[in-house]
Amino acid sequence: MAARAGVSVGTVSNVLNHPGQVRPATVEKVRAVIEELGFTPNANARSLAGADSRTIGLVVVDLRNTLFVDIARGAQREAAAEGMNLLVTNSDSDDSLQDAHLELFESARVSGVLLAPLSDPAVGVQRVRRHGTPLVVINYDTGREDCCTVLVDNERVGHLAARHMIELGRRRLAWVSELGALQPVQQRQVGVRRAVREAGRGVGLTEIDTQHVDGSHARTAVERLLAVPARHRPDAVVAVTDLLGASIVQELQEAGLSVPGDIAVMGCDHDARAWGGAIPLTTVRLEGEEMGVAAVRLLAEEVAEGGGHVHRTVVVQPSLLVRESSAGRVPVPGPTTTRALGSTRRGV
Amino acid sequence: MAARAGVSVGTVSNVLNHPGQVRPATVEKVRAVIEELGFTPNANARSLAGADSRTIGLVVVDLRNTLFVDIARGAQREAAAEGMNLLVTNSDSDDSLQDAHLELFESARVSGVLLAPLSDPAVGVQRVRRHGTPLVVINYDTGREDCCTVLVDNERVGHLAARHMIELGRRRLAWVSELGALQPVQQRQVGVRRAVREAGRGVGLTEIDTQHVDGSHARTAVERLLAVPARHRPDAVVAVTDLLGASIVQELQEAGLSVPGDIAVMGCDHDARAWGGAIPLTTVRLEGEEMGVAAVRLLAEEVAEGGGHVHRTVVVQPSLLVRESSAGRVPVPGPTTTRALGSTRRGV
Repeated sequence: MAARAGVSVGTVSNVLNHPGQVRPATVEKVRAVIEELGFTPNANARSLAGADSRTIGLVVVDLRNTLFVDIARGAQREAAAEGMNLLVTNSDSDDSLQDAHLELFESARVSGVLLAPLSDPAVGVQRVRRHGTPLVVINYDTGREDCCTVLVDNERVGHLAARHMIELGRRRLAWVSELGALQPVQQRQVGVRRAVREAGRGVGLTEIDTQHVDGSHARTAVERLLAVPARHRPDAVVAVTDLLGASIVQELQEAGLSVPGDIAVMGCDHDARAWGGAIPLTTVRLEGEEMGVAAVRLLAEEVAEGGGHVHRTVVVQPSLLVRESSAGRVPVPGPTTTRALGSTRRGV
Repeated sequence: MAARAGVSVGTVSNVLNHPGQVRPATVEKVRAVIEELGFTPNANARSLAGADSRTIGLVVVDLRNTLFVDIARGAQREAAAEGMNLLVTNSDSDDSLQDAHLELFESARVSGVLLAPLSDPAVGVQRVRRHGTPLVVINYDTGREDCCTVLVDNERVGHLAARHMIELGRRRLAWVSELGALQPVQQRQVGVRRAVREAGRGVGLTEIDTQHVDGSHARTAVERLLAVPARHRPDAVVAVTDLLGASIVQELQEAGLSVPGDIAVMGCDHDARAWGGAIPLTTVRLEGEEMGVAAVRLLAEEVAEGGGHVHRTVVVQPSLLVRESSAGRVPVPGPTTTRALGSTRRGV
């Protein structure tokens, strides 16, 4: 068809893939020939992205993190229910890889893209939107009005965590986290501060910067805790991630302190890979599956409604998951019958 | 080009996608025109699967299961190192979805496919091989000689688990599992039986069929254990999966037994989503990341070597991960300095 349109094969490819880079007259000429031959861009897209063109792509930042596995799983379930295929790529916390994966999905002509980024994905989002591909951003509030967004209420995550420690009677809280620019981290910090403020006098907050959200700097954080005389030392640590929380538990134990006896510890992000330690870790459920389901629903709406689609933001609510690292070992319940008797007696 | 070749657009599509379904003479005619126009199947494939055609697909059976997340992660790392993109689909234990995903990757003309199936993937493998697409099967021994395979030594998984219980002094082992046809399950069972046999007289084995590998039938299994008089009752449970093991721990505790005091319990598949319980679960590492890395290396070799490639099987070795559910609560270590002193004293 290149010969018939009197242009190079590369130009035909550009018309199909990057029409903005080709002179409008040439685009017209090539498109006319393509249409005459029955190779409309649409028919082409169908052959690329599967039999029915109902294939969507999901780019996640870190497939080790349970949140993103849960998002992928929820998205996959909902996609299957809607008769769509889901392709997943893992950008492994690498922004340039994330952009490459968005390009890959663009060139594969998927029906829509789900993106769960680490930091502001402005460049990638702009590119996808420019091509008119439906897009939903997950777990990052872009502040944009040209795409749908699914968020977990991260301020509530921090608030739930800190309030839990306060309700357990802890009075000297430590927020241990990277204190930099990561959006979910900042929002959790706002929630922690609010819970401490609401508790009023008698409850205090120390903030310790670990520079990373994983457990790599747990030892330094624990050294800072231990440098404080015992009676002023924090009696509760809220760590921004379960990885960091689990590492802090381990460091505290190796330093001879008991968890939660001396210091209660919890994570904030329901990350199962951190749960292999000696003491089950209290955390906050982020409801990733629910986020994945919501994202595919928004995307399917946009695919179906086209230009008439009104972008929305869905916010999923987190919930507390109490385990031994904050509340202590829960007594092993006796047999069911005994328990029933016991409560009858107490009830009398 | 359909008009020029004197055939329908559908026929052109069939020549590109399913050449086996088109008369050889027609294939020739269409291919000649395609080539004249510069649209070789190869050039087409490049536009489909991204800029450099170095995109590979991974179909996994269950993305919730840590093994498959680890495989995906290892594969992604190695793919990135080799300059390839990795697309992942999750077939959610659904064979027809698995076939649909294989077809999707075929139609997207990926350079190669990695497949981690639940049961014998003969049909899907045959289809992929017929099209000449490089393929590596992960975690299932197909017995085929027309593709590479990456396995974990599942017999050793079972052997490590049972031998661990025997070395802890346990004498009445129970193997709790679906006792049906699943290949990794059968192999683990062979390993468990061998460890018990090697231990000789004085160590016995009970096998309890749960019909499922997840925790859904844990209660029935525990009822069967409790129906045995205490002095004959198994004192160690090896569960085929961590999900089943964790559910058994919970059921035993609710029945008033202590773990590991009365009965030691462990899982076999290093599945982090089962680790949220009150007692950290002993398990066996399957080294999924290593499997993913090995699979991409084999695939890259086949892509590079083409027809000259000799198919191989790589077997990854599992390792034991001891936690409280079998070995009891490990005493909290004191500060590092104290420990160093202690070992010096013992060394003298």
